[in-house]
Amino acid sequence: MRYVTKIDLDLPGDAQPQVHNRWHPEVPATETITPGETVKIECMDWTGNQIKNDDYADDILHVDLTRIHYLSGPFHIEGAQPGDALLVEIKDVQPLERQPWGYGGVFHVDNGGGFLDRFYPEAAKTIWDFEGVQATSRHLPHVKFSGLVHPGIMGTAPSASVLNEWNSRESSLKERIQAHHHTAVAQLPNPKGAHGGHAKGDVATKIASEGARTIPGRPENGGNCDIKNLGRGSKCYFPVYVPGANFSIGDLHFSQGDGEISFCGAIEMAGVVTCSFSVIKDGTKELSLKSPMFIAGDVPTQYGPARYLTFEGFSVDEKGHQEFMCATTAYRQACIRAIEYLRRYGYSDYQIYMLLSCAPIEGHIAGIVDVPNACTTLSLPMDIFDFDIRRVEAKSVVASDCAYVKGASHKVIYEF
Amino acid sequence: MRYVTKIDLDLPGDAQPQVHNRWHPEVPATETITPGETVKIECMDWTGNQIKNDDYADDILHVDLTRIHYLSGPFHIEGAQPGDALLVEIKDVQPLERQPWGYGGVFHVDNGGGFLDRFYPEAAKTIWDFEGVQATSRHLPHVKFSGLVHPGIMGTAPSASVLNEWNSRESSLKERIQAHHHTAVAQLPNPKGAHGGHAKGDVATKIASEGARTIPGRPENGGNCDIKNLGRGSKCYFPVYVPGANFSIGDLHFSQGDGEISFCGAIEMAGVVTCSFSVIKDGTKELSLKSPMFIAGDVPTQYGPARYLTFEGFSVDEKGHQEFMCATTAYRQACIRAIEYLRRYGYSDYQIYMLLSCAPIEGHIAGIVDVPNACTTLSLPMDIFDFDIRRVEAKSVVASDCAYVKGASHKVIYEF
Amino acid sequence: MRYVTKIDLDLPGDAQPQVHNRWHPEVPATETITPGETVKIECMDWTGNQIKNDDYADDILHVDLTRIHYLSGPFHIEGAQPGDALLVEIKDVQPLERQPWGYGGVFHVDNGGGFLDRFYPEAAKTIWDFEGVQATSRHLPHVKFSGLVHPGIMGTAPSASVLNEWNSRESSLKERIQAHHHTAVAQLPNPKGAHGGHAKGDVATKIASEGARTIPGRPENGGNCDIKNLGRGSKCYFPVYVPGANFSIGDLHFSQGDGEISFCGAIEMAGVVTCSFSVIKDGTKELSLKSPMFIAGDVPTQYGPARYLTFEGFSVDEKGHQEFMCATTAYRQACIRAIEYLRRYGYSDYQIYMLLSCAPIEGHIAGIVDVPNACTTLSLPMDIFDFDIRRVEAKSVVASDCAYVKGASHKVIYEF
Amino acid sequence: MRYVTKIDLDLPGDAQPQVHNRWHPEVPATETITPGETVKIECMDWTGNQIKNDDYADDILHVDLTRIHYLSGPFHIEGAQPGDALLVEIKDVQPLERQPWGYGGVFHVDNGGGFLDRFYPEAAKTIWDFEGVQATSRHLPHVKFSGLVHPGIMGTAPSASVLNEWNSRESSLKERIQAHHHTAVAQLPNPKGAHGGHAKGDVATKIASEGARTIPGRPENGGNCDIKNLGRGSKCYFPVYVPGANFSIGDLHFSQGDGEISFCGAIEMAGVVTCSFSVIKDGTKELSLKSPMFIAGDVPTQYGPARYLTFEGFSVDEKGHQEFMCATTAYRQACIRAIEYLRRYGYSDYQIYMLLSCAPIEGHIAGIVDVPNACTTLSLPMDIFDFDIRRVEAKSVVASDCAYVKGASHKVIYEF
Repeated sequence: MRYVTKIDLDLPGDAQPQVHNRWHPEVPATETITPGETVKIECMDWTGNQIKNDDYADDILHVDLTRIHYLSGPFHIEGAQPGDALLVEIKDVQPLERQPWGYGGVFHVDNGGGFLDRFYPEAAKTIWDFEGVQATSRHLPHVKFSGLVHPGIMGTAPSASVLNEWNSRESSLKERIQAHHHTAVAQLPNPKGAHGGHAKGDVATKIASEGARTIPGRPENGGNCDIKNLGRGSKCYFPVYVPGANFSIGDLHFSQGDGEISFCGAIEMAGVVTCSFSVIKDGTKELSLKSPMFIAGDVPTQYGPARYLTFEGFSVDEKGHQEFMCATTAYRQACIRAIEYLRRYGYSDYQIYMLLSCAPIEGHIAGIVDVPNACTTLSLPMDIFDFDIRRVEAKSVVASDCAYVKGASHKVIYEF
Repeated sequence: MRYVTKIDLDLPGDAQPQVHNRWHPEVPATETITPGETVKIECMDWTGNQIKNDDYADDILHVDLTRIHYLSGPFHIEGAQPGDALLVEIKDVQPLERQPWGYGGVFHVDNGGGFLDRFYPEAAKTIWDFEGVQATSRHLPHVKFSGLVHPGIMGTAPSASVLNEWNSRESSLKERIQAHHHTAVAQLPNPKGAHGGHAKGDVATKIASEGARTIPGRPENGGNCDIKNLGRGSKCYFPVYVPGANFSIGDLHFSQGDGEISFCGAIEMAGVVTCSFSVIKDGTKELSLKSPMFIAGDVPTQYGPARYLTFEGFSVDEKGHQEFMCATTAYRQACIRAIEYLRRYGYSDYQIYMLLSCAPIEGHIAGIVDVPNACTTLSLPMDIFDFDIRRVEAKSVVASDCAYVKGASHKVIYEF
Repeated sequence: MRYVTKIDLDLPGDAQPQVHNRWHPEVPATETITPGETVKIECMDWTGNQIKNDDYADDILHVDLTRIHYLSGPFHIEGAQPGDALLVEIKDVQPLERQPWGYGGVFHVDNGGGFLDRFYPEAAKTIWDFEGVQATSRHLPHVKFSGLVHPGIMGTAPSASVLNEWNSRESSLKERIQAHHHTAVAQLPNPKGAHGGHAKGDVATKIASEGARTIPGRPENGGNCDIKNLGRGSKCYFPVYVPGANFSIGDLHFSQGDGEISFCGAIEMAGVVTCSFSVIKDGTKELSLKSPMFIAGDVPTQYGPARYLTFEGFSVDEKGHQEFMCATTAYRQACIRAIEYLRRYGYSDYQIYMLLSCAPIEGHIAGIVDVPNACTTLSLPMDIFDFDIRRVEAKSVVASDCAYVKGASHKVIYEF
Repeated sequence: MRYVTKIDLDLPGDAQPQVHNRWHPEVPATETITPGETVKIECMDWTGNQIKNDDYADDILHVDLTRIHYLSGPFHIEGAQPGDALLVEIKDVQPLERQPWGYGGVFHVDNGGGFLDRFYPEAAKTIWDFEGVQATSRHLPHVKFSGLVHPGIMGTAPSASVLNEWNSRESSLKERIQAHHHTAVAQLPNPKGAHGGHAKGDVATKIASEGARTIPGRPENGGNCDIKNLGRGSKCYFPVYVPGANFSIGDLHFSQGDGEISFCGAIEMAGVVTCSFSVIKDGTKELSLKSPMFIAGDVPTQYGPARYLTFEGFSVDEKGHQEFMCATTAYRQACIRAIEYLRRYGYSDYQIYMLLSCAPIEGHIAGIVDVPNACTTLSLPMDIFDFDIRRVEAKSVVASDCAYVKGASHKVIYEF
């Protein structure tokens, strides 16, 4: 089977032209793929080798977030034209045999942050070891689970007009609301750290100055959707905006919980994707396809419906402030309820925060119409623990903590 | 098995003292139940018999929303004290044999509205016939599915201080933002239509004037959570605020999709619940229980993971306006994508709107940290249709429409 | 919804003409049903009220096995003709609200026996109480599970020639091998206890003398298949042999394990079936339908794949005797392995024997080609127990025993 | 991760001392493994490279069945002693990246045969290509499925007395019944083709003359169980008979149906297993462990319960001959029903025979107590086909056939 991308684990991402880290129509295609051919694509971890397998979070603290996400491709799919749909079949996603580990992190609130950064502002890290389909971590004991391995990012290249739309609507948001926020509300194009793959000279400069950041998923091309079920065996349909589709893929996750709440929250890894492509002529119109659409595979980890402990969250924030129908607030509350519950077993808040980010938790919209409260649920699979988490009287079972910055300890218990 | 509530299908809810429609600590308990006893509880449909089995939506248009939701109880559970946890085991939920049908509706934007009322402001209705575990509708042809039967509302009575907290935070919201909204952002206590069950005289008056509305779910006691998986076989833990817990239940759904998007969106029905209760002493503290927590049952309808067609939604609204990390907006967009897709088969937009409300669709939080876009997914089970919805070239298969107000037709195609 | 059969719980089966207990083309149809109509059919327990809710197995010991199984019907389905296929949709199966309990039994080896009667020859009984979807038994503590409720018997009436084929091949078997068996190898027509429903006079006599017993399932019409997954939501296709199909149904089970090993092994109950019928013209030929074929429903109890403890059995019997490729022997050995394992927790062998008969265990053919050993598996769902059955060091948790004949105790430990 | 076995795809099995093909206590251990270490074990396909990726079945016809199954190991597990239990955790099973294909075959009745060799006596073959988690075959069009990848054979080495027991009971069977059978009823020790791994001289000769064949699974140590669900993520407990346990593994299957009916029926492949070992002291007694026992993994292919078409089989053979309670006969009949059904779509009988052998079909014991008929079911997952197999009016969709011996064609339709 043909490898259309091979990556180097010892070089930074920007030294490798077969990857890139901006969305732009002029990022040169790295390979041409014929519809029907099954290929293998190696992918770097999203930071391009910035994170190490050690017991400190200093690399997390100092991560350079202008240099993300390193995506493999783009790939020119023969015959794809604007208006078509590109069908991608993900036949497998595996970690690299030569690097059988991954990581999860909590970014410092001043360098990335995350869903709960108002409570957990410090940097932290967990290293996960892969043994076949399962992962364990010395930083999160008493837990083992099979990964819902998937690419966090897949997308077709934007046309110039789509790119323009992105940049204009996101900069408009920034102008509108940034003043009210401590952390960045959007990352606009930033030449610093930009990597246009094989692009050189003026094209490289143009990509660097105009290229959309890879952080958000976007309705037009998917991108960083972080959909944990869009993995092995899935079929995903994308709108095509440029000739050849120029499909990119990366940000592989060994496992992720719905929401990927700590931002660097999945078990991030380098790996290899096995996939094939088809072109559906005029598929954008035929399928009414404004955003990607998919059918998941038939080999996810499977727990019985009665094997989850489910927490409820409502759009009343942790200070008792009433929000209006805000599912985001509601999901944050569900996360907090789970943290309060699990700390009964001796886990630190940072450990739980990262566990909820990477374990196969289910986050559902429950009620979205009962003013003023949205209701969401967070379902925690009980079978990932090697003890019974249903005990009314809990005792501490956890002896170790996750990794922090050298010299630091953050075994906090946040009083919500 | 003892019936602790029987209801009358020919009388309005407010003529039946064994039900009530406000949350208040002084609503008199209707029965006492011993922990360990399994009982049956009949429940009215949430409107208290306001909706009829016919082919017009006039009853939906004119529904009196001050007279909802009629809940059975409250039930005094022996030995339960404030600070305890009440464990409720839902052993079964069934429609009433004497009324084997239910309904879903779209409320008029000026009387209730719903998640998509900006596009679909008119009243509409679908009647569903129950045949064993399955439902079909003459107003939504080519669809049949097994119900995830569940109570939309369960909750323990608030203490006076909890009630006070609710009323104060919701009225504060109203003061703060109502001016910016066309429809009500919160329903404050309203004596009109209030029903305090067996309460009489001053107590009834007090309940009517202070009692919290049953519309929103709330973190303290659950209430109208509309969690579709909290059904047969589930075990749910509730904080206890008043002696005896005073547990109420109602708003039975034959089936519901995540979000229950059209507000009257589930297949609403009268029915009977089989359940039992346990008291966990000091359970609120022992379980770190600020909001209800549950373990779902093991008998839900089950589709394979590869049997869903999944749509993605992002926090960019239908006009291209960029919202910041709004999962609510994102889920609305996923709903719109599903509507656009299904209308290819000839369904009217109102039909699809109601189908997404009541069929067992899954609504997930996917990514909640990738600024500025929240990403959500809506997964539609393909096996509820009697035709293959994956066809690239679709043809219309639907001949009939849902019910509208007499003389009206709203077979619109909204141009998003 | 129309009830086409109502049964009386206080009268024996043979006093009720709406049921019958022999297969014969001339058993008069009790009702006519139009294709497409959904009807309700009450069914007696298979013994016709012979078993009582008490703590003794005397009724099991003395059960009259000439008076079984009492089936509701036969029903004349309009338009069905020989050569057609009858499609039966099982929309629900429920216990009767007026009798919320069932039973399992071990027959005495001299009156019925069972799969393990060589080891467990005595009569025993367990009574099960139904609470919604779940069953528990005072005779089998620490166990609770949701039922895979289903009819053990469904079938179309045989034509005279099909009946003749049955009687001739079974009597031929009896002649051939009965001498080598302690218990009956087949039950031939027996006028004693025969009940021909509404048949009178010569017809009744003919049915009694020629009618095939209902004990075995048979390839031509299904009959007593005891397929635990052929329950709620299933669609089953039957060959039609007589005009009107003359479909009968009964032997309802609240739950059963694969094999129903103790013969009276399911949780036997009276109940009510909701179903509808369709006729597929020439379906026997069109579908190549020599035996029934079905698609199961989508609402079974669901445990995760990793929630079973699986035992292996091979075709070497308990004395070390090598059988040749005998899956029956192999499955018996898997049952024995499960008995040996579970008795570690204090269950008596008879309790386990009945538990394996009625709990939702999975019995698989694993290897059927590796001479001389067939290999089968028996998978026991761990979640039916309220303790963890995976402990290496087991301690007894069971205090009570099942019911035996008055004065008897059989808490044996058979030394395999 | 340490590879404890590497195999060569260009050399026959008997040229590779790290594999062996007989069960004997004196086969020398190839490696020592410490409890807790996770290792990788490469395994040859069961025939040791005898089968080629081509379009003829000549290699199948001439396969040397004295030279099977080539197993990796045995492995000495530190600290394991007779009486202990060996817990094996299968963390992954993958095909080799350097050989991404496998095969299924029907052996000629005179050289191996199979479950249906009385109807299908000729040799046939299908080649399967692996693309990630899925397999397709040019010899079986319109079918694609995800593999339940697993090792067909795992086992601990027999002690001398266990080996003696095997040889004596199987030779006794042969004496007793071989005269009545056309094909071999058991394969006794056979020096021809024997391979004792690293054994030399007298030991090698002893192994060759006494070593038990690997064909049957056996109750004492498991061996060739062909349990399709004993794959990724499984934990299996084995009795230990010799110091170090001397565990062997092989016969990897990309996928298999219950029964593996054509004998060479799974998708046979070379591959690599990731696993670890633990020793449970006195586990044979503590766990009442006479035969292996296991808990399957949580990542099997998953179809919904309503996505199978199920055929029923009874212990009346294809000529109408009544067998007594023979589950083996019953399962053969269920297989025949499936063949008759699928040939409606144009598949040849040999194609279907091999499809039922390798696709993830479920074969259940249904009723095993209703004299004289055992009832079994065979459930065929509908989602492996790219067309709808439920159509009443079928039309042929299949254009090509499987591979046969050069010059031959066997597109038969056997008249059952």
